[in-house]
Amino acid sequence: MKKRIEVDFKGYLDKKRKTVERSLDSLLPSVKEKPATVHRAMRYSVFAGGKRLRPILAIATFELLGKKGKKILAPACALELIHTYSLIHDDLPCMDDDDLRRGKPTCHKVFGEGIAVLAGDALHALAFELLTSTNRADVVMKVARAIGTKGMIGGQVADLEAEGKSKITLPEVRYIHNNKTGALVRASVMVGALIADASPEKLSALSEFGKNIGLAFQITDDLLDVTGEERFVGKKTHKDQLKATYPKVIGVERSKRTAKKLIQQAKGHLGIFRRDETILEKLADFVIDRSF
Amino acid sequence: MKKRIEVDFKGYLDKKRKTVERSLDSLLPSVKEKPATVHRAMRYSVFAGGKRLRPILAIATFELLGKKGKKILAPACALELIHTYSLIHDDLPCMDDDDLRRGKPTCHKVFGEGIAVLAGDALHALAFELLTSTNRADVVMKVARAIGTKGMIGGQVADLEAEGKSKITLPEVRYIHNNKTGALVRASVMVGALIADASPEKLSALSEFGKNIGLAFQITDDLLDVTGEERFVGKKTHKDQLKATYPKVIGVERSKRTAKKLIQQAKGHLGIFRRDETILEKLADFVIDRSF
Repeated sequence: MKKRIEVDFKGYLDKKRKTVERSLDSLLPSVKEKPATVHRAMRYSVFAGGKRLRPILAIATFELLGKKGKKILAPACALELIHTYSLIHDDLPCMDDDDLRRGKPTCHKVFGEGIAVLAGDALHALAFELLTSTNRADVVMKVARAIGTKGMIGGQVADLEAEGKSKITLPEVRYIHNNKTGALVRASVMVGALIADASPEKLSALSEFGKNIGLAFQITDDLLDVTGEERFVGKKTHKDQLKATYPKVIGVERSKRTAKKLIQQAKGHLGIFRRDETILEKLADFVIDRSF
Repeated sequence: MKKRIEVDFKGYLDKKRKTVERSLDSLLPSVKEKPATVHRAMRYSVFAGGKRLRPILAIATFELLGKKGKKILAPACALELIHTYSLIHDDLPCMDDDDLRRGKPTCHKVFGEGIAVLAGDALHALAFELLTSTNRADVVMKVARAIGTKGMIGGQVADLEAEGKSKITLPEVRYIHNNKTGALVRASVMVGALIADASPEKLSALSEFGKNIGLAFQITDDLLDVTGEERFVGKKTHKDQLKATYPKVIGVERSKRTAKKLIQQAKGHLGIFRRDETILEKLADFVIDRSF
């Protein structure tokens, strides 16, 4: 029985990933359109792989609330564009200086730094165009706040500044992770919930769910850097020694336990939905059980 | 009589500039809030001077349409934040590589390149937060499209790519200017018009007005690079020899005539408002008569 559900979940992930990728393809400007270089760079980074976790979280939340239809697709894709823009800028030499991402050369390695900066900026602007097409100011606002200095960018700044420090505390690394990664993951769940017109009670439960899986997701990323192999993870591993990570601050075993506990807490918040097993619970497990 | 109007216009500009700067100060996060570094960088660049032309255009258009009140301020400030973000990224070593902007060291010179990239990204996100606070999807959409690859970023890409070329044509430089600078100037007028609920006929006239002054503005920037002095212009002059500019393509005198003609055409589109002299006409004159 357990196995069947796992197979179904893999099928679900594959199906949704394909749906998201078809939507991304139709929403991104064609490389035949001027200015072609930046359109190529945008598409290169968006289609360089990726689990599509953020759009799938938005879609799964939307569907958990009993909704169906295509209106979730544009805002769900916007979340992936924002994620991709943040990776392109994060990989720049003046930031994390990464040559490899998802097993491929990073955007600036292929197109040059200038075009990489602009491709990130363009994905950022296009994401807001897609979010605005929902005609839902609450959705646009939720995302705008999640990726500003009180969210994603705040985490990136603290992360950048932590590199020089000799000692990082647990509250510091928790702040970085909750913001750098957690804020957009949580917002992804909320985009699905808001577009599905969830009740205040359900919005609140889903917000806590999103917060917990967001932190667990980044702790798992840290663990994969320590324990994962480059050929699976798709980016250079063992390079986080200089960075603020959970394993560095509390060790590998305690980090694993923390991530597990967060996923348990996350699933606890789904009790309100009174279902035996939901895709959202499976997604929560996937957040820490993945190898990439 | 003419003199009196000029004095009034200068007074108008000063008053509006102060209003915009007070609003910017209240809308930008405090440097006391975490993450302080990026808040300092954002404020440093936003308050490094600037004519505040884009917000003033939005306000003047709003007022020309008989509206008053504070609801134009947040979206007007959003336009200035977007302009500032584009300058911060444009000044990066991988783009225009400028050390000086508005007479002061550029953002990356003071805060480092990583923080400069993030400060630009944060201003971009905050701008959409402010735009969304209007609860007007048409306004957010107008700006999002104006600054994407079919607008501002498209122009920046073409500008970056033109640097390597030995010959630039007039249609090429017109494309760059209309997009790199013109799209946001035009959108600024449109933000004022949309929030004032202008009729379709007036929206169309104001759109043409904005398009003409946008192009004239960038031609004037090109001319100031050739003829202006660094101490007035506030950035390194005579550095555009490698770039796509009007003076390079059609010469200084023809560029001046083109800019003048564009301003005449712009003012022609204001005929619909049937007033003797409007602030918007004065702003159009200012676009080409300025020395900075």
